[in-house]
Amino acid sequence: MKKIVYPEREIWESICKRPVFEQEELTQTVLKILENVKINGDSAIAEYSQLYDAIELQDFEVSEKEIDESDLSISEELKEAINIAKQNIEKFHQAQFSSEAIIETTKGVKCWRKNIGIENVGLYVPNGSAPLFSTLLMLGIPAKIAKCKQIILCTPCNKDHKINPAILYTAKLVGIDKIYKIGGAQAISAMAFGTETIAKVNKIFGPGNQYVTKAKELVQQNGTSIDMPAGPSEVLVIADTTCNPEFVAADLLSQAEHGVDSQVVLLSNNDSVIEQINSAIAKQLEDLPRKKIAAIALKNSFSVVLNSIAECIDFSNCYAPEHLILALADANNLSDKIINAGSVFIGNFS
Amino acid sequence: MKKIVYPEREIWESICKRPVFEQEELTQTVLKILENVKINGDSAIAEYSQLYDAIELQDFEVSEKEIDESDLSISEELKEAINIAKQNIEKFHQAQFSSEAIIETTKGVKCWRKNIGIENVGLYVPNGSAPLFSTLLMLGIPAKIAKCKQIILCTPCNKDHKINPAILYTAKLVGIDKIYKIGGAQAISAMAFGTETIAKVNKIFGPGNQYVTKAKELVQQNGTSIDMPAGPSEVLVIADTTCNPEFVAADLLSQAEHGVDSQVVLLSNNDSVIEQINSAIAKQLEDLPRKKIAAIALKNSFSVVLNSIAECIDFSNCYAPEHLILALADANNLSDKIINAGSVFIGNFS
Repeated sequence: MKKIVYPEREIWESICKRPVFEQEELTQTVLKILENVKINGDSAIAEYSQLYDAIELQDFEVSEKEIDESDLSISEELKEAINIAKQNIEKFHQAQFSSEAIIETTKGVKCWRKNIGIENVGLYVPNGSAPLFSTLLMLGIPAKIAKCKQIILCTPCNKDHKINPAILYTAKLVGIDKIYKIGGAQAISAMAFGTETIAKVNKIFGPGNQYVTKAKELVQQNGTSIDMPAGPSEVLVIADTTCNPEFVAADLLSQAEHGVDSQVVLLSNNDSVIEQINSAIAKQLEDLPRKKIAAIALKNSFSVVLNSIAECIDFSNCYAPEHLILALADANNLSDKIINAGSVFIGNFS
Repeated sequence: MKKIVYPEREIWESICKRPVFEQEELTQTVLKILENVKINGDSAIAEYSQLYDAIELQDFEVSEKEIDESDLSISEELKEAINIAKQNIEKFHQAQFSSEAIIETTKGVKCWRKNIGIENVGLYVPNGSAPLFSTLLMLGIPAKIAKCKQIILCTPCNKDHKINPAILYTAKLVGIDKIYKIGGAQAISAMAFGTETIAKVNKIFGPGNQYVTKAKELVQQNGTSIDMPAGPSEVLVIADTTCNPEFVAADLLSQAEHGVDSQVVLLSNNDSVIEQINSAIAKQLEDLPRKKIAAIALKNSFSVVLNSIAECIDFSNCYAPEHLILALADANNLSDKIINAGSVFIGNFS
């Protein structure tokens, strides 16, 4: 992890720049896939599963039997963890299911906003190097609470035509209506336009690789809503002398191990804090099952020594991280200064 | 306005289809404008103002003097109307400025969502055949309530380098920080990338023609947020025998006069209601100052006779109108069945 010491404010923006990929070729490839699936439906999906994943798929839909069997192939411990996560996520989102006050703007004119669940939603869960049942929980639970009528899931299968049982268990638990063993831009196209097997949806949710993200961007221009374009995972931690370096190291590694394109950033007003965290990273990395991935991600990552915690917060607002962790004595008060972050974790670990 | 009588459900979707325009040429034109403004800044903007609007612009920014003078050139009556609209819109959006409950998902783990105003926002107000100060009120007021730090406005000027005084009066009233006399895809590009004169914004809001909409779509793929892609204006009215045909006709014409590409749709379970409304439209159209525009829009518009009001609501959900008006005896209860509409106006005019 590169260390940058007291950079001038003028260069912050350039430090914060994420890598930009050449889009033209990607766009052309994805446009072709979208068009082919739109016209040829299921047979185009089979063609791409063969071409990109060397999988010969006859039937995309996961059967009841496969779903029921998933129950037997995962540990009770994992089931329990998924169940607890479900309860927590449900509790959080249930509280958002509220109706707004009716405002009488002029005598007799009453105005209000009303949230209505989208009828048909499509979720995408990538099949990377880890089964992302957490993604499925976080997409599926709010959809259920919002009373979406039909919730379908597309996720790629492995060479044996199987989907990870933890994903199937979670899908059943959440109440997903249909699960299809397809991935990539072809899955996004299938959900956007519909095929013989897969019913067209109104909105598509979920992360994915650059093909999936581009496909979502493109179908959005043709009348299908999307949640947002997803990029690689990232976390930024601001730490002071009160932090627990072991915990900060673990937090940084937990995002670094997401993928080789992940980026983690560490900010402090104290160089020795950064050094302690770096040592802890080196030690913990040795025992990490996903060491290889994390090590590559750390090469794209960096730490910055700045003059004050206030400056660290300014830098973080400039970077606008997906996830932000404040490992600071005064985290509660300082969190008010955060204006640019997907989520903020405030924890005092001292 | 074409009349369709008892169409089968199978063809509803094709009736509801909006016209689709060839995008490829448009995309290429707009991409060139975006790229040119990104590289050449103000001089590219001046070039396009000259090319597309035959306006030789030296200075894009509206001066204090121009803003102050606007006060003198509009009637007290119009000012009063704008002031009242501001109060109503403010009252409505102020109520949305609330903080959510903090949820303790697990003992000691407290989660909440926090809304933070975006720092720099850019508003676009088109300079069509009417000064859309209503658009400016509806974009600017929530931005102010959200405490956005810098709010800029781009809107095209006329051949005399002037912006309609009603727009300037409204901008001052709402508290817009800077106003620029530029329009089209070049204005969107300027706000997305910044130029020597215009500071880059984080998010762009507002409607526009197909060049503006395409430019918003394209800058969204490069890191600038947009509100949503805007299409032509539309309204759908469901009317029963209790409606006031004169009022429904006026409502339909009020959208039809927006632009030649507007579409208005009238649904009823009673053919004679549709005939009465059509007569009222024909009569009112004669006295309409924007008769020419409305008459062209009516050619793209249609009415549908269906078997029941329940079927009218199903059809409306299929069409998913931007604006929906329920001119029905039982409008209050029936509004619960609406699942696809931008806004719903419930009014019993009988």
